[in-house]
Amino acid sequence: MNPLTSPLLTDLYQLTMLQAYFAHGMLDTAVFELFVRKLPDNRNFLMAAGLEQALEFLEGLHFDEEEIAWLEQSGLFRADFLDRLSKLRFTGEVHAMPEGTVFFPNEPIVRVVAPMPEAQLVESRLLNLVHFETVVASKAARSVLVAPGKLLVDFGLRRAHAGEAGLLAARASYIAGFSGTATVLAAPLFDIPIFGTMAHSFVQAHDDETAAFERFAQACPASTVFLIDTYDNEAAARKVVALAPRLKEAGIATRGVRLDSGDLGALSRSVRRILDEGSLQQATIFASGNLDEYRLRDLLASGSPIDGFGVGTSLVTSSDAPFLDAVYKLQEYAGAPRRKRSTGKATWPGRKQVHRSFRESGTLDHDVVALESEDLPGAGLLQPVMLSGKRVAPAPDTHSIRAGAARNLAALPPSLRGLEQPAEPYRVDISPSLRELAAQIDRKTGKP
Amino acid sequence: MNPLTSPLLTDLYQLTMLQAYFAHGMLDTAVFELFVRKLPDNRNFLMAAGLEQALEFLEGLHFDEEEIAWLEQSGLFRADFLDRLSKLRFTGEVHAMPEGTVFFPNEPIVRVVAPMPEAQLVESRLLNLVHFETVVASKAARSVLVAPGKLLVDFGLRRAHAGEAGLLAARASYIAGFSGTATVLAAPLFDIPIFGTMAHSFVQAHDDETAAFERFAQACPASTVFLIDTYDNEAAARKVVALAPRLKEAGIATRGVRLDSGDLGALSRSVRRILDEGSLQQATIFASGNLDEYRLRDLLASGSPIDGFGVGTSLVTSSDAPFLDAVYKLQEYAGAPRRKRSTGKATWPGRKQVHRSFRESGTLDHDVVALESEDLPGAGLLQPVMLSGKRVAPAPDTHSIRAGAARNLAALPPSLRGLEQPAEPYRVDISPSLRELAAQIDRKTGKP
Repeated sequence: MNPLTSPLLTDLYQLTMLQAYFAHGMLDTAVFELFVRKLPDNRNFLMAAGLEQALEFLEGLHFDEEEIAWLEQSGLFRADFLDRLSKLRFTGEVHAMPEGTVFFPNEPIVRVVAPMPEAQLVESRLLNLVHFETVVASKAARSVLVAPGKLLVDFGLRRAHAGEAGLLAARASYIAGFSGTATVLAAPLFDIPIFGTMAHSFVQAHDDETAAFERFAQACPASTVFLIDTYDNEAAARKVVALAPRLKEAGIATRGVRLDSGDLGALSRSVRRILDEGSLQQATIFASGNLDEYRLRDLLASGSPIDGFGVGTSLVTSSDAPFLDAVYKLQEYAGAPRRKRSTGKATWPGRKQVHRSFRESGTLDHDVVALESEDLPGAGLLQPVMLSGKRVAPAPDTHSIRAGAARNLAALPPSLRGLEQPAEPYRVDISPSLRELAAQIDRKTGKP
Repeated sequence: MNPLTSPLLTDLYQLTMLQAYFAHGMLDTAVFELFVRKLPDNRNFLMAAGLEQALEFLEGLHFDEEEIAWLEQSGLFRADFLDRLSKLRFTGEVHAMPEGTVFFPNEPIVRVVAPMPEAQLVESRLLNLVHFETVVASKAARSVLVAPGKLLVDFGLRRAHAGEAGLLAARASYIAGFSGTATVLAAPLFDIPIFGTMAHSFVQAHDDETAAFERFAQACPASTVFLIDTYDNEAAARKVVALAPRLKEAGIATRGVRLDSGDLGALSRSVRRILDEGSLQQATIFASGNLDEYRLRDLLASGSPIDGFGVGTSLVTSSDAPFLDAVYKLQEYAGAPRRKRSTGKATWPGRKQVHRSFRESGTLDHDVVALESEDLPGAGLLQPVMLSGKRVAPAPDTHSIRAGAARNLAALPPSLRGLEQPAEPYRVDISPSLRELAAQIDRKTGKP
């Protein structure tokens, strides 16, 4: 069983519920919507991501013989149900916001319309993919906004939450505007630029730091960003200056240095001076080591001459907000709108659309969450992406998704662009018709 | 390319460094150790996990034709290097603490001894696996300690950081003492017990809540834990009471109810009363919804009659400490101990062992981190697990790993068992010989 494509990568209750749906012939059309209930304290907006992986999952959904055999021997399921399950494919339709779209609480970003068992079964993995990439894109966008024009590289694979997270974090952060990643596999799979320098172990494996730099340059003449903090940053910067003419003779340009510890602001200034005085004005300074958007903002605000940043753990774990209150909720079944009223978790019923209004400057003004059937001004952000279980268009390439995300970030009002909470949250209205529908359902089911 | 087994799931600098190691014949034996530099504020100890996945990765490590072809066309590497790479396998030895072992900062939990290129290449994925499972096991152990005897189920798949994290979080939390998981795939892959109830969507898809419960029970007679918070917990509990005799006639036992929102303490008491007065004394109350170890402790301290807990997002994202300062550092190359001295990130050099001393009661007393060559009292926690690239013994089953973890938790001193920081951290000594070796290296390389 392939861990990432197996339909057993789901919650057990999805399968028991499916057994009940089939047993009772509950195969009517269900409408589920994926949305986030509220913003974390440290986010002024969210950025949708993960849709392509979700659609790939839906297109490939099936139970193979080995999986059915395992379910059979588990003793938890009936033979007639497993027979139905072995034939199940996703045949529904999906509307979604394009990846890279900025969005806000209570706005559906994915809507699934399918026979109940199909729409139900896909919940766990759909959320698992879209939630995570949205978490990372939303985090990454903050670094992109505070460090315009800087080289931003995802360095997070080693402390990402296992392998798929490392890989998809590279994708989500690139979509949000990062320049690329250190994770090699992201290049063949998603056509994302990859970057790398050298590790302390390489320097330590040599008795002499200059020898380490020179050998690395000889072996990898295109990758001459030297890591200078293994012992003493300034001493190492002077060694780079001394080495550079020898490398130049061999036809190798000294591209730059990497700082990875200590007071990055002070070090960048002293190292910049050493490089400049050593005729290495073109060499860049790249910084890494426990960085996040706050450190980037502060380093740049204090005028630190840093050209690029490797951002790792804080990015890929979204350490200050490692999850979103993202849910996938039934909004309509068999033509009737549905509403959950659990304390603090009530939902807006029915098939919905999000309409966005812009100011003349092109800046976001406000959104309206309305019923799909309503005719409202402003573009509808949810677009059809899958019909009868097949994508309506080929998957967009990662670069055009990234370009769309950049347009979204450029349209953010100034109040949402910083790292601090705005005085007023972005305005998201619920349409009167949608409010009336919710009230109708409450009256019918006899509770306020 | 399989995303989880491809050797391209690594950082680019590993490959450029390998090209340099091969170019300069730096193929001597390297010793790397994986350890955590410091505890997060909310952790009194850590629990090692992820070793089995790491060993599986090492045993299977190789570049296939497609991967070599991609590296070739990338233009980043030399043909002679790619030829070497295509033949590379992991041939080294590994010592490690058994999974489920409690450990502390600066204690190596995995030591890799192999020719430099092999030992270097595996860094990113080894850390990626061991770090994540250790994060989750260390988080899960806290719930296990505050809720002894309760059914604890991992509910986190949907908000785990993508698929592999969901799956491995099920494994790591089970090792730490959870009763099982909702993630189905964890059963065939790791032989972990799976649990499930029903979702709100199932209830909402019916016009009548009692009909939803009854249909579910008929279709899944072994899974009768009814979710009662969709509209009104107490009203739904009365419906369960009214339904139970009818189910009993059909030979179906009402196993319990699940609360998923609202004031779980107050609701558990009122629902317990309703169930008891309705002759459902045997039915259990299971609670879920934004739970973590603090909520579990408080609910149990206030005497809430709750029999089991579903813990999801906070567990699988380890939301209060989503990462550890885990690193994999070169400690020796070509027979000479090595030391990194970067500000705040200095390492202890050489091949090390951890010796643990216990009190007469069996409780942990203190640890000593020493050189492997030292003969010290107390068991050495690092044991050989791989020689010449092959496991020295078959992988232990998940249940025996879990039993070992339980013995580790039982041996914790009282000061480390709670959720608050102890007055004194656990004592971890650095042996005099190890300190002397570090000082020697500093003298030789000319810096304090």
